[in-house]
Amino acid sequence: MLNNQQVVVIGGSEGIGLAVARAARSVGARVLAVSRTRAKLEAARDLVSGLEVRVADINDTASIQELFAGLPSVDHVYVAAGSTKVGSPLDQSLDEYRHKFDERLWGSVEVVRAAHHLVRPGGSFTFTGGLSSDRPVSGAWVNGIATMATEQLARVLALELAPVRFNSVSPGYTDTPMWDNVFPESGARALSDVTKKHLIPRLVTADEVAQAVLLLMQNEAITGETIHVDCGARLV
Amino acid sequence: MLNNQQVVVIGGSEGIGLAVARAARSVGARVLAVSRTRAKLEAARDLVSGLEVRVADINDTASIQELFAGLPSVDHVYVAAGSTKVGSPLDQSLDEYRHKFDERLWGSVEVVRAAHHLVRPGGSFTFTGGLSSDRPVSGAWVNGIATMATEQLARVLALELAPVRFNSVSPGYTDTPMWDNVFPESGARALSDVTKKHLIPRLVTADEVAQAVLLLMQNEAITGETIHVDCGARLV
Amino acid sequence: MLNNQQVVVIGGSEGIGLAVARAARSVGARVLAVSRTRAKLEAARDLVSGLEVRVADINDTASIQELFAGLPSVDHVYVAAGSTKVGSPLDQSLDEYRHKFDERLWGSVEVVRAAHHLVRPGGSFTFTGGLSSDRPVSGAWVNGIATMATEQLARVLALELAPVRFNSVSPGYTDTPMWDNVFPESGARALSDVTKKHLIPRLVTADEVAQAVLLLMQNEAITGETIHVDCGARLV
Amino acid sequence: MLNNQQVVVIGGSEGIGLAVARAARSVGARVLAVSRTRAKLEAARDLVSGLEVRVADINDTASIQELFAGLPSVDHVYVAAGSTKVGSPLDQSLDEYRHKFDERLWGSVEVVRAAHHLVRPGGSFTFTGGLSSDRPVSGAWVNGIATMATEQLARVLALELAPVRFNSVSPGYTDTPMWDNVFPESGARALSDVTKKHLIPRLVTADEVAQAVLLLMQNEAITGETIHVDCGARLV
Repeated sequence: MLNNQQVVVIGGSEGIGLAVARAARSVGARVLAVSRTRAKLEAARDLVSGLEVRVADINDTASIQELFAGLPSVDHVYVAAGSTKVGSPLDQSLDEYRHKFDERLWGSVEVVRAAHHLVRPGGSFTFTGGLSSDRPVSGAWVNGIATMATEQLARVLALELAPVRFNSVSPGYTDTPMWDNVFPESGARALSDVTKKHLIPRLVTADEVAQAVLLLMQNEAITGETIHVDCGARLV
Repeated sequence: MLNNQQVVVIGGSEGIGLAVARAARSVGARVLAVSRTRAKLEAARDLVSGLEVRVADINDTASIQELFAGLPSVDHVYVAAGSTKVGSPLDQSLDEYRHKFDERLWGSVEVVRAAHHLVRPGGSFTFTGGLSSDRPVSGAWVNGIATMATEQLARVLALELAPVRFNSVSPGYTDTPMWDNVFPESGARALSDVTKKHLIPRLVTADEVAQAVLLLMQNEAITGETIHVDCGARLV
Repeated sequence: MLNNQQVVVIGGSEGIGLAVARAARSVGARVLAVSRTRAKLEAARDLVSGLEVRVADINDTASIQELFAGLPSVDHVYVAAGSTKVGSPLDQSLDEYRHKFDERLWGSVEVVRAAHHLVRPGGSFTFTGGLSSDRPVSGAWVNGIATMATEQLARVLALELAPVRFNSVSPGYTDTPMWDNVFPESGARALSDVTKKHLIPRLVTADEVAQAVLLLMQNEAITGETIHVDCGARLV
Repeated sequence: MLNNQQVVVIGGSEGIGLAVARAARSVGARVLAVSRTRAKLEAARDLVSGLEVRVADINDTASIQELFAGLPSVDHVYVAAGSTKVGSPLDQSLDEYRHKFDERLWGSVEVVRAAHHLVRPGGSFTFTGGLSSDRPVSGAWVNGIATMATEQLARVLALELAPVRFNSVSPGYTDTPMWDNVFPESGARALSDVTKKHLIPRLVTADEVAQAVLLLMQNEAITGETIHVDCGARLV
């Protein structure tokens, strides 16, 4: 139970972030969903009873600082940041690759720097890693280093900033609107050929990933951990 | 929720096994606790409302086969087996070391062989690994290989026997009656010097380990996974 | 250089063990190759100048004890033990599976127990792990736990018995006579379909595995390590 | 042997880089040592017979591009980049932390982008990881994510750019001039209290790390690998 605890979800307007917001509400938390896009936040508020929302940008340090400056205390933070760019490491500008990398890793660091003083002992931060830490795929090289660095960030900060806890969740191919950007016509359905060889031959649901995040928030003996919710994709 | 699902806990009369039995009951499962010792099972039945109990011995293949032969179907199995023997690898008989190793690893295998045909797709087995996979300690050398082999067993069988799922839980120093055998006068309290350097400076509770086992049972996108519930002990 | 150092290779009459024996001879070591089969040892002696040979059986504790009782001192030991049995975990007797497992893991332990008192500080034992620790394959479930347990044995004993060093080598699909038993007609050539999807699309050579074993013997700052020599097989 | 092969060492004027240069020369390679500081390169040339030297700066993309534009072909590259900054993640500017991180990770990426087209199949890049991937220490949080990200870069590029090979070496506390900056009065001797609890209770030598790098260059079946040369520091 998270009765009356304050949960903040960075990237909480859709996908895994929204599922975490809903799951945290369902066990009694006060939940603040944060996104760059007001319209998405308002849609999220229609879906999750009692959800609070705020516009802020994880790529803008001042915006993140201002977000947390307005809060009296925080129990748990989930950072959903984690898009990527696919391509060769050799023949394009590094700028966009580094932007995606920085958003996931250094964005998570900025959230910690802005929020840490508000978090009680036993409270937690949860970051977003991914399948490509364990099973890099050709083309997704930047994702492969970004998810691994972010999972390691949780371990490093668990040691550095205990007794606040730091963990990560590693989702497999998950049924979220993110895929609509990658495959505009088919969205996540385009992945059915990929997922049919997984041990559980289907997409992960955002709610399944959220269940693991809730355990990481609630269980005060877990820190420095990465939970994989991937239908066994990293084993095949 | 595990409404009306059949959970079997091998080693379910005390400690982590009993906590798993209680947690599974609390989310609606039918739970069968198994132990070598009838008196302990009867004590457990007084503690957990609606608990069913059965005497069987994980070191006795026939006993385990008979146990499952009497069940119509099974959804989830937790194997709590995992005691150890401390000492030098050089100067004593290997027999007792190997007995402890075999009980954890091959005992888990025997449970799978006896129960697998009863388990539905998406059902699960959860084994017991431990801290010494990641942080071996001097003297506990057999534990170090037994927990690692058993965590690997979950990965291997996840691949081999999908879509049934196989996972493990890796507890740190946990407050259970097992320590009464190791330190007859003080029990788990003898560990306070060890745990005070952990990131969360206390013993893990059996209920915290059980929470992780429940996630592994309920979340049908998780397989081949080990969840560490150790107060950060493996990071220091 | 291993000038005048005593190297013992358990399983030294062919394959990776023979390659280690040859490599150690080439950098000046005295090398004793051990095998169950006298004829194979005599063939090996024709191939490697100055090789000493002895018949002993890793599955027979007394035989291994007698082997080392006859030696005044030992600098480095390589244990090549590591065959396997493929099949389902569910429907055959466990006996042969356990025999293969025990030979690799407990055979390595018996070698350490018999030889440790002869090994100087900085000397080393190297065990044989394998690809299936990182990339289990369907059917090879016992191999998957045996190689992982043996790699972990090196880590555990590195901690327990320092300053003697313990390491393992993890070979991929290697061009050795072992495959003649698995594929009587084609031997290792049967694997060309498997290896063509590896990052380096060919079999590993026994000499390449031996190079890594030589580093583990010679470099006195390396302990508790597993070196993977697999043409990238575990990454695809 | 690396007869007539072209080896480039980025950061080759001292410490581990210089040791790699010397070791590669000793097995017949042509070696180009690169550093920001001409005076250090000239000192290195006095120490290693036949060493070629060039001034370039890994933090300057154009400088690295120009370096490789002047070379007809390359067989192996070692990137020694890897200093760090110690401090709290919470209360200082991120700029210097990010500079150290970027130098190790993105500097390694820039070297690959500038040199890859010159490297033959079977040639290799070796990056520098470190102990803090496996055993983060308090204060060295940026190092902990930088070494892990760089070791993962090797795995990711091994997959992406095969049959060129990518590996990393993970040194423990190594006797190099780097420590003169950290402890101006005592240099690496300041670490004797730290190293005495390691399994091999001493500093690693630069030559020992170089031996592992040489194996990674010479052994064409090894890719995506990290070799730990740390006197067992990550196990205690």
